[in-house]
Amino acid sequence: MDASSEQIHTLMADLGARARAASRDMARASTAAKDRALVALAAAIRAHRPALQDANLRDLHAAREAGLEAAFVDRLTLSDKVVEQMAQSCEQVAALADPIGGIDGVRRRPSGISVGQMRVPLGVFGMIYESRPNVTIEAASLAIKSGNAVILRGGSEAIHSNRALADLVAQALRTAGLPADAVQLVPTTDRAAVGALITMPQFVDVIIPRGGKGLIERISAEARVPVIKHLDGNCHVYVDSGADLDMAVRVTENAKTQRYSPCNAAESLLVARDMAADFLPRIGAAFVRKGVEMRCCPASRALLAAVPGAAPLLRDATEADWSAEYLAPIISIKLVKGVDEAIAHINRYGSQHTDAILTRDHPRAMQFLREVDSASVMVNASTRFADGFEYGLGAEIGISTDKFHARGPVGLEGLTSVKWVVLGDGEVRN
Amino acid sequence: MDASSEQIHTLMADLGARARAASRDMARASTAAKDRALVALAAAIRAHRPALQDANLRDLHAAREAGLEAAFVDRLTLSDKVVEQMAQSCEQVAALADPIGGIDGVRRRPSGISVGQMRVPLGVFGMIYESRPNVTIEAASLAIKSGNAVILRGGSEAIHSNRALADLVAQALRTAGLPADAVQLVPTTDRAAVGALITMPQFVDVIIPRGGKGLIERISAEARVPVIKHLDGNCHVYVDSGADLDMAVRVTENAKTQRYSPCNAAESLLVARDMAADFLPRIGAAFVRKGVEMRCCPASRALLAAVPGAAPLLRDATEADWSAEYLAPIISIKLVKGVDEAIAHINRYGSQHTDAILTRDHPRAMQFLREVDSASVMVNASTRFADGFEYGLGAEIGISTDKFHARGPVGLEGLTSVKWVVLGDGEVRN
Repeated sequence: MDASSEQIHTLMADLGARARAASRDMARASTAAKDRALVALAAAIRAHRPALQDANLRDLHAAREAGLEAAFVDRLTLSDKVVEQMAQSCEQVAALADPIGGIDGVRRRPSGISVGQMRVPLGVFGMIYESRPNVTIEAASLAIKSGNAVILRGGSEAIHSNRALADLVAQALRTAGLPADAVQLVPTTDRAAVGALITMPQFVDVIIPRGGKGLIERISAEARVPVIKHLDGNCHVYVDSGADLDMAVRVTENAKTQRYSPCNAAESLLVARDMAADFLPRIGAAFVRKGVEMRCCPASRALLAAVPGAAPLLRDATEADWSAEYLAPIISIKLVKGVDEAIAHINRYGSQHTDAILTRDHPRAMQFLREVDSASVMVNASTRFADGFEYGLGAEIGISTDKFHARGPVGLEGLTSVKWVVLGDGEVRN
Repeated sequence: MDASSEQIHTLMADLGARARAASRDMARASTAAKDRALVALAAAIRAHRPALQDANLRDLHAAREAGLEAAFVDRLTLSDKVVEQMAQSCEQVAALADPIGGIDGVRRRPSGISVGQMRVPLGVFGMIYESRPNVTIEAASLAIKSGNAVILRGGSEAIHSNRALADLVAQALRTAGLPADAVQLVPTTDRAAVGALITMPQFVDVIIPRGGKGLIERISAEARVPVIKHLDGNCHVYVDSGADLDMAVRVTENAKTQRYSPCNAAESLLVARDMAADFLPRIGAAFVRKGVEMRCCPASRALLAAVPGAAPLLRDATEADWSAEYLAPIISIKLVKGVDEAIAHINRYGSQHTDAILTRDHPRAMQFLREVDSASVMVNASTRFADGFEYGLGAEIGISTDKFHARGPVGLEGLTSVKWVVLGDGEVRN
């Protein structure tokens, strides 16, 4: 370890120890204090909008100097609208029910003791993200409400914006009588800080990375603490034999084209062979209207070739296409014999994120729900619904494609654990 | 990688791929098929008792040749009683409710979709254990019932017994029409096999180690997959001001002396200062009767010195005693000012396993439940109750002192995950 990485290590261990200490106070904090902090934070964000935007200008200036692309600069920008949305999100999190402290499932046991489970915070989580500074506020507000401490590591391009936001969070925590160390921003942009953050199991209970697949793969490979993550959203829509045609076209079009960049957008369309002649021309026409490129198996290509205007958008699918997450106006299309082949294809090539069957057949709907091994499985609904807000979680810190701990959209509950509570009257064990 | 470790790696990757494939069939298996396999296994264990004991004799012979200690040989022995207990445990697991396939919490959302969560198996778990061959049957039966596949790595000293048992499991699975690969025993005693098993995230979803602290620490440090584990059971009993004296003596004595070796036995006794003069002489007399060594803070030692017969059992506690897990007739004893100091002491020195308060005071009972950061927290009950069967889980695959995924006694549910289920009628996202 050279001198600089030893310094970073010391810095991160100090951050970690302070987060761990703060997490004990946060676990004990009253709902009222946590909500006071969130409401104070919303007010501070509104009151300090000009100062936030000044700090943000420094980041934007550097980003433009560095020639970063327009979409990147757009995500980095704290517009009036984004600032107001951050304030509102704090108020929304304040309005959610406190997940902490409830005791569930208390049962009297033959020994005389009563046993139940109390919901408690996980402790400390590390949030690693890229250019959007509003993630700083999202992660901070969910940490506060769930009684955790968080260590934030945002993209280096947003460091001035993130520092300004973290200062407001610290003030809001103090206002509410809570420890400012509950939300700490890693003060350095040195990459070694990430390496330290993900290898401190004594201080950090879970890491939540958001960003590109490369970043998340690297973090997962090197982490010594659990990671809540998803790598890919290669979501499928399977149109089953006898599906309602109008519904199938409407839902498939929505799943693919309502937005192209979210991870829950459909990337692959499977069609039961006996539906293809009726269904493909109609969905093909919709894709032509929106300029969606279609990467097809030979049989589906033959049927789609007859769709007016489709020719320039048709390609032969390669093996790699079945695994691809395009996040773009591109979809792979394959005919399958029926639900068994569809399920086998999804379990082989999918990313265990979100997959939907469009069907009228109850047994096949149930088979798809049971056998597709994905975080979200759907019948007759657009994959775009896979989202913490749409599922009623009230918030979303990320989406998990792992099965351990949290799976699918992760809200406040994914940031919690339980402990067993035993209430006795002097019972002893025989 | 040398030739031999490359061979092991290939062997384990093959085992892993077969477990992963079998896990897909197990996830789909009907409750009836899983229960048939368990009942067939119970019958096979009884029918093949002589053959099992022959195989076991080879292990026992080698263990005696190697000069292993009597307690070790005892744990290794498949006596008539142990064989019958294994058969009964399979029947008990068969009688448990199937944890898989239920859908909970379905709610209609404003968009029109209904959202709930279906319970599903984790997939494949790896079980690493030491000399007791009956763990082979425990792990196999819980894997079968929970719809998982398992890869078993028992102690090398039990290899002949474990092979004989694994053969019976494979037969029982085939009898029920389930894949024999759902339960596989690592066929080699080479230590490199453990290294491979804990670094195959593509094939193994979670590792459950059972054994000494050294083994579990090594596995946790090297694993590339999640681990369900507990390292230490440094369990505390805190006797609060005004506790019922008879109850306090009865519960403390039970927590410490009912059995010394389980992880949920008490190792440390904290006593509110104003209770010490009444309580310590009585519990001290009980400890003297049972020959329990007392490692004391100065104030508690002074009070215990007056107990007839106590002198030879009294020691001054060192700092290391507050963190120690004795698993022996030894207890550390400390006077504290009250519940705040007790909680701070437990959170500092404890192992987050199981801790109890003995009290009549409701606010202090609630404070202890909320603030002690342990997997099990108890009011007026013996720490010895921290156990999957006592909690009503019907089985126990291990105890977790982590907060991620499963915490405390882990039954069938700890071997499961959920997936989100969305039931729609053609809804699309706006």
